[in-house]
Amino acid sequence: MVTTITDLAVHDVRFPTAAAGDGSDAINRGDYSATYVELVTDGPHTGAGFTFTNGRGNEITCAAVRALAHHVVGRTVEEIFAAPVAFWRSLSADVQLRWLGPEKGVIHMATGAIVNAVWDLRAKLDGKPLWRLLAELPTEELVRCVDFHHITDALTPDDATAILDKGLIGSQERLAELREAGFPSYTTSVGWLGYPDDKVRALTRQAYAEGWRAMKMKVGGAIEDDVRRARIIREEIGPDALLMMDANQVWDVDEAIANMGLLAEVRPYWIEEPTHADDVLGHARIQRAVSPIRVATGEVAANRVIFKQLLQAEAIGVMQIDACRVGGVNEVLAEILMAAKFGVPVCPHAGGVGLCEYVQHLAIFDYLRVGTSLDGRMVEYVDHLHEHFVDPVRTRDGRYLLPERPGYSATMRPESIAEFSFPDGPAWR
Amino acid sequence: MVTTITDLAVHDVRFPTAAAGDGSDAINRGDYSATYVELVTDGPHTGAGFTFTNGRGNEITCAAVRALAHHVVGRTVEEIFAAPVAFWRSLSADVQLRWLGPEKGVIHMATGAIVNAVWDLRAKLDGKPLWRLLAELPTEELVRCVDFHHITDALTPDDATAILDKGLIGSQERLAELREAGFPSYTTSVGWLGYPDDKVRALTRQAYAEGWRAMKMKVGGAIEDDVRRARIIREEIGPDALLMMDANQVWDVDEAIANMGLLAEVRPYWIEEPTHADDVLGHARIQRAVSPIRVATGEVAANRVIFKQLLQAEAIGVMQIDACRVGGVNEVLAEILMAAKFGVPVCPHAGGVGLCEYVQHLAIFDYLRVGTSLDGRMVEYVDHLHEHFVDPVRTRDGRYLLPERPGYSATMRPESIAEFSFPDGPAWR
Repeated sequence: MVTTITDLAVHDVRFPTAAAGDGSDAINRGDYSATYVELVTDGPHTGAGFTFTNGRGNEITCAAVRALAHHVVGRTVEEIFAAPVAFWRSLSADVQLRWLGPEKGVIHMATGAIVNAVWDLRAKLDGKPLWRLLAELPTEELVRCVDFHHITDALTPDDATAILDKGLIGSQERLAELREAGFPSYTTSVGWLGYPDDKVRALTRQAYAEGWRAMKMKVGGAIEDDVRRARIIREEIGPDALLMMDANQVWDVDEAIANMGLLAEVRPYWIEEPTHADDVLGHARIQRAVSPIRVATGEVAANRVIFKQLLQAEAIGVMQIDACRVGGVNEVLAEILMAAKFGVPVCPHAGGVGLCEYVQHLAIFDYLRVGTSLDGRMVEYVDHLHEHFVDPVRTRDGRYLLPERPGYSATMRPESIAEFSFPDGPAWR
Repeated sequence: MVTTITDLAVHDVRFPTAAAGDGSDAINRGDYSATYVELVTDGPHTGAGFTFTNGRGNEITCAAVRALAHHVVGRTVEEIFAAPVAFWRSLSADVQLRWLGPEKGVIHMATGAIVNAVWDLRAKLDGKPLWRLLAELPTEELVRCVDFHHITDALTPDDATAILDKGLIGSQERLAELREAGFPSYTTSVGWLGYPDDKVRALTRQAYAEGWRAMKMKVGGAIEDDVRRARIIREEIGPDALLMMDANQVWDVDEAIANMGLLAEVRPYWIEEPTHADDVLGHARIQRAVSPIRVATGEVAANRVIFKQLLQAEAIGVMQIDACRVGGVNEVLAEILMAAKFGVPVCPHAGGVGLCEYVQHLAIFDYLRVGTSLDGRMVEYVDHLHEHFVDPVRTRDGRYLLPERPGYSATMRPESIAEFSFPDGPAWR
């Protein structure tokens, strides 16, 4: 039975979050949005994928999806997965569109939206949630999905094979454990820069009561404000819970080192995006200076080559993959495998709209088949906008419960798409 | 007298170059295109700027320009130049659009197109070619145009001031020299991958006869083909002329090192883009391995932070700035100043459409006021599509002659815009 992708529809879906101060940090103040891709087929299923954007400009990623659509419309799922790297490169290395990246920004995010929709479709056809599809794939087939171009100096197909074969050992026990207890997570809902002190204290207290033992705050405002807010959170969560900090790239390298010296008193577990996301050497300097605080980054790391260097330079203690910044599941596989090779824990970036839905699958697969440890592993959790998804994340006591429905949990409710379509949906009129 | 920018028009202009094999290399096969920006004012002048793309997808950069237009329409040239970094950041750090880069790819190229149009307008208002406007600006004003965010660990305002003050010494003599002899350049028109051997030989012979003593060939096909074509060019140009090679990022790091071992017999002067453009550490390894051959890169270096690292890591022996990949003149100033600080010669990337017109101004300013040396300095020259510009480059004996008309030489002929507008111009119907 062959499934042909007969059409691609793209929707510009925007949620008016900016006005509420949700998601405000040192550099972003957004209307959480999705460039939402639907792959129509000649069978009963559609494939759903999206990339997340911050509001204005979502029409640009939509235009990029349209420019790439001819690479997927008319193809069968079977031929795509018979030669997955060739398919991936038809998008990421299009001889004309590649110039617009290459492999970064708008064009790469659009690539990710389409590639993820293809994986969602494949998982639905197989009747499995994506994490289970991936975890059950033979090593050889997983390795064939990875484009090793430009990363062979860090990870070879033989390296990947060894990691994935080893990951088969004990995977049933790890799965049973996850079904029982869920996947560890942390919350970012307590300390947005847009929130006043009393709201930070109240939200922290509430999150602690709900079972969260790891919380992240935004820093990068005036340093005395950052210190004051950090003390409030540390007071509320006690000495043992983890406090993470996120500077969203506002600091220069030396500034990051100096400011983390001042923030060290509240014992942060990690400092996320301390400086410009492209600055591998800068992150390496910061990591050496602030240890044992871990440097974390990844939500805007453009591609596997940036992650490769962060690992090679020992610039990070936590690798934050993102489901839709890079070129979809295929590229994320390369990143998860490199993290395992270099022994760095993966803690996926989430939040925005739909990112939690996506990354839970990646973290579960990582644990079952690649990293095989929960030590230092947590998935970010933000309590926004889940209601717009057909298969929203479910959490209990600060842990993600396993998604069980077929697919990549990316399918949005039709009524949400209609309501929040920009600029013509009722929410925007 | 105040000049207000009253409107911004953007044109999708594409030239059907792909069919001819011009511009073919290891990864690109393009219809050279421009996302062309016109700033309309309440005065007699318009500002012209563009970013170069490779054909398909030019509508995406056009959409990005439209998304950014509100940051420039309604402003006066005077207020923009009263606070140039604030203006630059209004584009590059828009709280919603920034997510689409940040500072890379489509959104940053669109930023560059607008910023360059503003500089073109300013130069026209001052009645000077851009190189002269820049070379004659007081040090303080030039320094105020640079956003030092994220590069202070490599270049401070004090560093920039010292370099630019020193550049005042002897600048009149250097200018007289350029007026007499022109600016050195090299040609890339001889060795595109799409050309057969006999065409390569004939073009090389012709270029040598025309006075060129530095030529660049594309590599990255089958290595035995690369070696054969390289030998043809070396035979034709003799032992003393410079032969440069450009791999357009196709090689992995170890592959680049191995292949340059084989190509070393023809004594290449530089190897350009030996691997993925984001791979700072990879370039550094290659540079150490292939020395004294110089590693060159920059045409797709996303921003000043990538260039900073290439310099810090001693990864390049030639820095190839691009006029429209990054955020326009302001960001290029940062790059040229960093190159001077680290003692690396700047050889701008050109070709495509309009890139020669742009970068001649940057190279001339660099010589007059920053780098102050011609040692190892050359501007790329490709003999394509100059006829579409109002103020096209002029060359003599393999050297650029100084542009003298006011502006940034970016203004396209109205009849060319009309003829090649996509998809409705006569050339595309």
